[in-house]
Amino acid sequence: MTYPSDSNRPEFAFGARSRQSPYFDRARAAGACMYSLYNHMVMPVSYGDPMGEYDRLMNHASMWDVAAERQVQLKGPDAQKLAQMMSPRDVSKCKIGQGFYTPILNKAGGVINDPILLKLEEDLIWLSIADSDVRLYAMGLADAYDLNVEVTEPDASPLAVQGPKAEDVVADVFGEHIRDIRYFWFIQTEVQGIPVVLQRSGWSKQGGFEIYLRDGKRGADLWDLVWASGEKVVGKAWGPGAPNAIERIESGLFSWGTDFDELNNPYECGLGKWCKLDGDHDFLAKEALLRIKEEGPREALVGLHLSGAEPMPGVVKPMPITDTAGTEIGTVRASVWSPRLKKNIALARIASGESALGNTVRADVGEGFIDATVVAVPFT
Amino acid sequence: MTYPSDSNRPEFAFGARSRQSPYFDRARAAGACMYSLYNHMVMPVSYGDPMGEYDRLMNHASMWDVAAERQVQLKGPDAQKLAQMMSPRDVSKCKIGQGFYTPILNKAGGVINDPILLKLEEDLIWLSIADSDVRLYAMGLADAYDLNVEVTEPDASPLAVQGPKAEDVVADVFGEHIRDIRYFWFIQTEVQGIPVVLQRSGWSKQGGFEIYLRDGKRGADLWDLVWASGEKVVGKAWGPGAPNAIERIESGLFSWGTDFDELNNPYECGLGKWCKLDGDHDFLAKEALLRIKEEGPREALVGLHLSGAEPMPGVVKPMPITDTAGTEIGTVRASVWSPRLKKNIALARIASGESALGNTVRADVGEGFIDATVVAVPFT
Repeated sequence: MTYPSDSNRPEFAFGARSRQSPYFDRARAAGACMYSLYNHMVMPVSYGDPMGEYDRLMNHASMWDVAAERQVQLKGPDAQKLAQMMSPRDVSKCKIGQGFYTPILNKAGGVINDPILLKLEEDLIWLSIADSDVRLYAMGLADAYDLNVEVTEPDASPLAVQGPKAEDVVADVFGEHIRDIRYFWFIQTEVQGIPVVLQRSGWSKQGGFEIYLRDGKRGADLWDLVWASGEKVVGKAWGPGAPNAIERIESGLFSWGTDFDELNNPYECGLGKWCKLDGDHDFLAKEALLRIKEEGPREALVGLHLSGAEPMPGVVKPMPITDTAGTEIGTVRASVWSPRLKKNIALARIASGESALGNTVRADVGEGFIDATVVAVPFT
Repeated sequence: MTYPSDSNRPEFAFGARSRQSPYFDRARAAGACMYSLYNHMVMPVSYGDPMGEYDRLMNHASMWDVAAERQVQLKGPDAQKLAQMMSPRDVSKCKIGQGFYTPILNKAGGVINDPILLKLEEDLIWLSIADSDVRLYAMGLADAYDLNVEVTEPDASPLAVQGPKAEDVVADVFGEHIRDIRYFWFIQTEVQGIPVVLQRSGWSKQGGFEIYLRDGKRGADLWDLVWASGEKVVGKAWGPGAPNAIERIESGLFSWGTDFDELNNPYECGLGKWCKLDGDHDFLAKEALLRIKEEGPREALVGLHLSGAEPMPGVVKPMPITDTAGTEIGTVRASVWSPRLKKNIALARIASGESALGNTVRADVGEGFIDATVVAVPFT
């Protein structure tokens, strides 16, 4: 028995288990050609022109199908109580119309997700999540504590507009008043009868908005509207995009599931600043965090400059890092050639003792171990 | 701005968030060319020869990288108590070395997964799960009830051998004694120093075993051992495979996430027989199930014969079903051309009132609505 060589491009399998977003057909028609699965939903990750997509995000604006950024809806009198159990921030301080970035922690202090919490009403909260079924953790708590809250996945599908001209595009769609929306705040509105939540947010540091479509049947309509405004405002430089591997690494946007996960506590992945241990609010992980903070983190999420002047392909799995004596001390989680820095850069998890800025380590990113230097993120 | 047409084959994006199984490199070298993500792990779903893979499974034997069938490990004095909270079966009846297929239910009676429960020791249970983070639901219960149990994902990665000659292959690897293992029972053993759990199980109705590798560093070693036995025992007809869309539909193996999900109760997806409501055991969904059983199911998971003699491509998303008057009554979840029946067949969720065997409905599987007949599964 013989088989084709592994030089084939791996094909993405579609099927009912891999849910299609409301924008699926439009994104495909616009050239989406590489996909991942995220929160059980098909997510375009490339339109076949990586440098063009990077350029649009850095210098113009682009539109992203990020419907796979699903929501966990907590609805009912105990919604805020349930959210507070899982969050180290004081959720009572979040106002209606405001978003709070927050780690979601289990009782042991493990980070099971890092969503933006949106407070839509006193008794209606969304968690706009990374790629884990945090809904099931919330449901377990609600079932066990017999809380008066429904934990569901609502019909809400974000379409992102990101880049320096994103605000102009979104203003063309919704009106000039959207320029007053502050970072992570949102409004509930509609455009041409399409109900949406419009938030100043998005998974880049280039600015922009996320438009949470609240009627999955209107995906093509919303896409077309935003697309038309993009062409009008940005012109030929307008186009589709996706969460961008280059930009997010350059900007030091850590990714749950890629860079860190539930085996990490918040102090190991840059989330310590969101953990308020001396507030009036209580949460399940408080006791664990007090102990962990005392003990100090075992590892740190850091940036690396990789040696060598030639672009190298990004890693596709965690790759080993050693100290200069050859002892394993961590893993590279993501790497990329930075057009801005003209360097290969990486995000890595390494033992705390090796995480000082300027420290030299050895990293294998696919072609044997090479020198690497610990640097600050965002990369400058 | 113009983009390539959508005629391109969609590419699967690799990356650290999409975990690679211990068999990843071996499966790729053996020709794996189409992938999905399942429990956050890359899973090969085709080696580019669908009919050859079907033939091997039906008439010979094949080997599958199903490491993405992850385990939820419950370990500690309250392991059984926690498992029982989520299962409508009497978990105390499961013996050490035995597997119990069981729905995992939330308090409302929703099916959040349908694993095989493996009892390894009195206080050590694995749930061998379908594609949802049921670990997080278990963790929520454990945290809220303050149970004395650790909920983790262990280092355990199934490699399946399936098909009529699978037992011969596995006997060649482990010895003749494995022929005595009963369905869903397992032994803890090792081969050439590789620790495994060996269970008579697997996601087909063609017979076989799953070898749960307990040391992720030994994936290539285990693959090579089993491959060598396969070539020796089966000869040229041996080869790689994956959970098979054709066979699983013909056999009526329902798939959580594709055919049914947490919005279904067990009586709507053929799982009512596993719900024991009059036993001594208690579980969180008991009250809900008593009420749901009284009310009767709203919908049913059924088989369909689709009209037309020509093979049609399988659906890649839920497609609508109407009654003969045109009222929507359900969705096709999966469809395929059956080589055995020489018919297009499908699994579908339809309103209970329309689910009688022999009923005629109308289904759109991609080329407009056509006649379809409700039939029994497994398909005969």
